[in-house]
Parts: sequence; structure tokens; C-alpha cells
Amino acid sequence: MKAWIVAVGSEMLTPFRVDTNSLSITERLNAIGCDVRLKAVVGDDVGELATLFQRGVGTVDLIVCTGGLGPTEDDITRDGLARALNLECETDEQVLESIRQRFEKRGMVMRDINRRQALVPRGAEVLENARGTAPGLWLERDGTSILLLPGPPLEMQPILDRVVDERLKPRAGSRGLFRRVLKLTGRPESEVDAIAQPVYGQWLSAPIPIATTILAKMGQIELHLTADAPNEADARVALAAAVRQLLDVLEPSVYSTDGRGLEEVVGDLLRERGLSIAVAESCTGGLLASRLTDVAGSSDYFDRGVVCYSNDAKIEWLGVSPDLLAAHGAVSEPVAQAMADGVRQRARSGVGVGITGIAGPGGGTPEKPVGMVCIAVVTPVQQQVRTFQFIGSRDMVKFQSAQAAMNMLRRLLADGPPVYRD
Amino acid sequence: MKAWIVAVGSEMLTPFRVDTNSLSITERLNAIGCDVRLKAVVGDDVGELATLFQRGVGTVDLIVCTGGLGPTEDDITRDGLARALNLECETDEQVLESIRQRFEKRGMVMRDINRRQALVPRGAEVLENARGTAPGLWLERDGTSILLLPGPPLEMQPILDRVVDERLKPRAGSRGLFRRVLKLTGRPESEVDAIAQPVYGQWLSAPIPIATTILAKMGQIELHLTADAPNEADARVALAAAVRQLLDVLEPSVYSTDGRGLEEVVGDLLRERGLSIAVAESCTGGLLASRLTDVAGSSDYFDRGVVCYSNDAKIEWLGVSPDLLAAHGAVSEPVAQAMADGVRQRARSGVGVGITGIAGPGGGTPEKPVGMVCIAVVTPVQQQVRTFQFIGSRDMVKFQSAQAAMNMLRRLLADGPPVYRD
Repeated sequence: MKAWIVAVGSEMLTPFRVDTNSLSITERLNAIGCDVRLKAVVGDDVGELATLFQRGVGTVDLIVCTGGLGPTEDDITRDGLARALNLECETDEQVLESIRQRFEKRGMVMRDINRRQALVPRGAEVLENARGTAPGLWLERDGTSILLLPGPPLEMQPILDRVVDERLKPRAGSRGLFRRVLKLTGRPESEVDAIAQPVYGQWLSAPIPIATTILAKMGQIELHLTADAPNEADARVALAAAVRQLLDVLEPSVYSTDGRGLEEVVGDLLRERGLSIAVAESCTGGLLASRLTDVAGSSDYFDRGVVCYSNDAKIEWLGVSPDLLAAHGAVSEPVAQAMADGVRQRARSGVGVGITGIAGPGGGTPEKPVGMVCIAVVTPVQQQVRTFQFIGSRDMVKFQSAQAAMNMLRRLLADGPPVYRD
Repeated sequence: MKAWIVAVGSEMLTPFRVDTNSLSITERLNAIGCDVRLKAVVGDDVGELATLFQRGVGTVDLIVCTGGLGPTEDDITRDGLARALNLECETDEQVLESIRQRFEKRGMVMRDINRRQALVPRGAEVLENARGTAPGLWLERDGTSILLLPGPPLEMQPILDRVVDERLKPRAGSRGLFRRVLKLTGRPESEVDAIAQPVYGQWLSAPIPIATTILAKMGQIELHLTADAPNEADARVALAAAVRQLLDVLEPSVYSTDGRGLEEVVGDLLRERGLSIAVAESCTGGLLASRLTDVAGSSDYFDRGVVCYSNDAKIEWLGVSPDLLAAHGAVSEPVAQAMADGVRQRARSGVGVGITGIAGPGGGTPEKPVGMVCIAVVTPVQQQVRTFQFIGSRDMVKFQSAQAAMNMLRRLLADGPPVYRD
């Protein structure tokens, strides 16, 4: 199956907003082996949309269109479809009644303007929208199925799920695109690609071909493997073998093969080891604590943290000695170590982390340039302190520092062979 | 002028990546009054791209196409244009030579595959790319200008800037779209729109029409005003009047009319008042400290912070009394107040903030549901404590809490009597 995705709305033709619905739609369509060949964004322009529909009908198997189903003059998707296929729009009394009831339930009277949302191009099926007033619509013409969905993701998603399960999946059979993702940190993209390419380069011509996409984000690289397989079981086997091949060459940079973020991986390790953690941050300014506590249930292991920007704070709250600060400067391995030790002792935690560095853009010197960050990690049985030189803006230095601290901790805690989960 | 923007690359038809080049291109085009009417993403498919070019040529004034200019078989933009307009591609010796030199400078030999990047559809002008091997291309046909740009933003941007300045702006004259943005917090979108709509609704028919876009992000609403004006000076006047009208009805929810984020606004107020700040966080887990320290130069006023997840931490590090915790529970206004007082005293800072709440998804009770957050702000001359009930996921509750704390502080500092250095 080949599909187009069309997003309707002038706001997505401004510099402020990008169409993101198409990502979750693509994900759902790919999962049943349906290939997205074109994505388009049109404004509130009936003619432009009608032209697009006309071009697609009879050419692709499916057109999924989001947005433009609201009650105002700007909402032109119904009209665009009707014009493209030369159909009349008629009021659907059942839809009108359900919109009226929706307003009533909230103690409001339906405005006249909302009658527009009950208009249905002749021949289109109405798809119930439990979360809003705009129903979805479904129409088939010349071998092309056309699916109109409301724009708000919360309203769109359930209708899409239903249509995929009930209408598209039976057509598609068991063939589909199935995915696994490896997440890495601590290595540049070019290095990861140079190592991984000879491995994944062979998969495209395998019996179950696997395509690999490298996404380099800040402080993190993701390898997305997509298997084009006759069924899920075969895909699972092929992907598991592929993941193992990549682990052979990329371990121990890989921190996750099951979608978990680094925060979650570290949190799970702490919980498994029965360790609590306390963190002392300077240049990351609380970002490490915030990321660790982004994980639901992190209060099981996260006890407390301090952000000590000033030297006074490091002395008073962490017991860092003024002599040490004077001798080495605030950004130094001994101070990072003293911060980690200090917070660990004062919190009586299993693990202590200390981070001190220069986030920039100011504050750098030739000896200690912007992006230089010292990180210490202390566990009950081990300790490590390292100096990093990160590149990028202030928030990039902060993020990479938190990432590096968590990765150091992950590798210290993973004594013995790391356990990867499917 | 009417424009289309086309992004080429199969990776943007996966669920992982969205075309963002179009946002900066739209911004640049809008600035010279050029309207974007369609955005499209096509994969590495010559036929699809050629069809798009054919549809656009003679219809719109400008087609800007990004990506697909690399050296591999997948890079089909040159071929797509050539096929659409029935042109031959020829090797441009000058381009070839500059690619060769680029490799030489890095001590490498140009690979044969890179010869493809020197192919130019007959009649197209070459636009130098100082940052990469793929030059841009420019061609005019049937009243439509076609601009091909490399995909990497760092390579794309300088070529785009040059083309806009040298080729498009002279055509467009001084007319353009000019923007201002108001940022608000602490009010729901529907309420903001109900208040603002009667105001901005009149601007569309004004001599200098101003369009308004409301963007509701988490814990924050932006009103983007776009004036369609004959020149920048007139736009400036019209936008200033418009901003004043909105301030009349929406102040004091508006925290910024100049693009600054809430962190920056609060930081600037602290710096102006000569106040330092210390924060004590429970449910936000360091996010408030991290956001405050996202601002370059925040060490001028940010001294320290603590993240006290456990009761022990609140007692030991902030001096919150165990009796208070027992009487009111950790999530309560008296405890938030004690946290703010405690951190302020221990840090000897001008301002203290205390946040305690239930971020979820677990931990809620009927009396204290998930999303309930108590925030206290103490300055040298004022104090305030409030309880909020936020909606959404764990990270949304965290973000909204940090946002609310900064907004309370902003309003206290802005409204209160002048305070002096501590």
C-alpha cells in the first residue's frame, strides 16, 4: 500500500508550527507495511486542497488528511474533498444531533456555526469522534481510500487507530515494517557510523531486509532498524539478530535496545542494586536531578540533590575545602570528587555525583575553556572522575554533561555483562 | 509573491524526522512579503519530484527545494528538475574543480561519486556553497523561479540569505510581513482567546492588516502578530499599537513582548533589583534551578538550590520541622513556605522559593490528587504561597510548576515596592 499524508491549516505554513501528526500517522501506517510516499501541508485554500485530492485519487491507495474539520470558514477540508470529487455536501442529522448533545452535556447551546461540522460529502462514511465535535470521514474512489481526520492529536489518534485496525490491517495482511532502536552515547556520530555501516550495509539485501536510520541528537545517537518482513515473528527474529550484530561492534556505548532513555536505564540499575543517589551540580544547574526525576517512581532511589553555583555554596553545603578550591579552581577533578563525596556523605546515599564545569558562553579561559566539565561518580565500591570537553551552546553543554554523568554511572553500575532487554 | 517549499529525502517520510528547514525558509520569505502556499516532502523518487515541479512551474512565483543534492544515487533533486523541465544535465567544470579542491584541502582525494554533484541542468545558475560540496542551483521558467538548496541547515542558510537579499528582495520591494510576539502564562488558552479575539479580530481589516496566531504550549501561550505592511517603519508603528491594545486587556498575564523567555524576564528582574535567589524543590526535581540557570550570566543572581525529595532531606537540609510535616503532610502550603524560608536563610539569599507537590503518575490521593502543587515565594519584603492543580503527565506537571513559581516571582518583583540589595 502506498499512502499520502496531507495536513490542512494555514498555521502550519507559518514559521511557528510544523505538522507533527504525520509522524504518528506514518508510524501506524508503516506498522502495517503501508509506505508513505508524499507529505503535504496546504493552507486554508479549498482549490489547492482539491487539486491535491484530484492528483492522489487513482494514484495512491490511501490519502490521510488531518485538520480543517472545525466549524469556521477556515475549515475547508470537507469542501476540498467535495470539490475534488464533484460531490454535494449534506447535513448528517445524526452527526448534528451528537454535536448538539455534546454541547448540552456541558450546559451549553450549540452555536449555528457548528452545523458546518455535520456536513458530509455524499457517499462518505462518518467515523465517530468521541473526543470532539468534528467526526472523521471515510470515502473510497477509484481504488483510493480517503480518510479525513480532525487535527488535534487527542481526537485524531483514536479514530486513526480504529481505521487502521478495522479497515486497513485486514487489507494489508501480516506483512509490515517492524522496528527496533538502539540508543548510544559517548561517541561521535561519524565514529558510530564508520563502525556500524559495514554491519548494517549488508542487511538491505538480506531475505528480510532491514533499513537503518541514524539519528544524531544532542549527546545521543539512535540507530533505528526497520525490517520489512512477511510477519511480526520473522521480523522479531531478524531484528534480534541485527541488534546482536550491532552490539558486538558498538558495546558498551549502547545503553538501551528497548526504547528506554538513559534516565530510565540508570534508574533501573540503581533500583536493581538497591542504591540511592544524591547529586551535586554546578554547571548543569539542576538538569541532572531534573532528568533523573523525570522518571516515574524515581523517588525509590533519588533522595536529594544540590545545585552549588557559588564557591560559598560548595564550601558550606558540600564541605569542599577552601584550600582545594584555591589550589585547583572550582572547575577541576579534585573539586568534582569532593562534591561527589560531600553530597554522598551528607545525604548518606549509596551513590554520589559531582559535576563542575564551564557551560558558557562566558567564563572560559585558555586553560579552562567553555565546555570543559569535570564529573565524579562515587559508588560504595568504586569511584571515577573524568574531564570532558564538550562543544556547543550553553544548553548543549548542560545536556551533554548530564548525559555523560549518567553514562559514567551506568558503566560503573553495570558490573559484569550488561543485561539488555527486548 | 507566492511560494512552495519542497523538502526531498526519504528520511523525512519516516516517523523519526520532520522537515524543519521549511520553518526558517518560511521566516525569510515571509519577511519580504512572500507567502508560502504549499509545503511538501517527497522521498528519493525522481518521478514524484518531477511531477511536483511540473505542477508548480507557471503556477507560483517561487519554488524552494531543499535536500537531495548529495553525491549518492539517492540524491535525485537535480534529476527531478531536469526531468520536469526536459533539460539535459551537464558537468560544470568549475563546480567540479571546486569540489576537487575542497577534498584536496582536507588531504583527501575526491571520490568519483562526487562528480554527480557537479552536474547542472542546462540553463541553471550555480550558487556557491562555501560550507559543503553541493552547490545551490537557480533556474527561471515560465515566470517561476526555482531554487535548489542543500539539505544541511548550515549549508542551506547562507545560500538562502544571499538569494533572498540579492534576487528576491529587490523584486519584493519594501513590503513584507513583520512580527511581534507576546508571551503569557497563568491563564488557559480559551480564556486568553476569549479576551483577545475581540481586539485582534478587528486588525485584519485595518489599513495595515495584522494577523494573529495563538500558540498554546505547555504552561505558556504565545500570541504571534504578523503585520502585512508596505515597509518596516509602518509595521513597527502598527505592531506597537497592537501590542498596547493587547496589554490593556491581558496584562498582567503577559510576561514578555520582546521574545524573552520567562527565565530571562525573571533573571533580569532579579538583576535589576540586586537580589540573589535560592530554590528548594521537591516535585520539580531541579527543573526550576535548571531553567533559571539556562540563562547565560545567571550566576549573577542564582546562588544555589536544593532538591529535597524525601522528608529527611527537607528536615536536614531546609530545617522544615518534623511536626509541621506530620501535621500538614509534605505537600502543603506550610511546608512550601518552610522550604522557601529555609533555603533563603541557609543560602542568605534575597529570594527563596519552595515547591512541593505530586508530579504523578502515582502518589495521588482524593485529598491531594496528582498535579496538586504548593509554591511559596519569599522576597525581602513580601511573601506569597499558593496551591495549584495542574493537569497532564509528570513532565507537564513539573514544567507548569516551574513556570508558575517563576510567574509568582515575576509578579511579586514587578508589583512590589522597590527593594534594595541584600
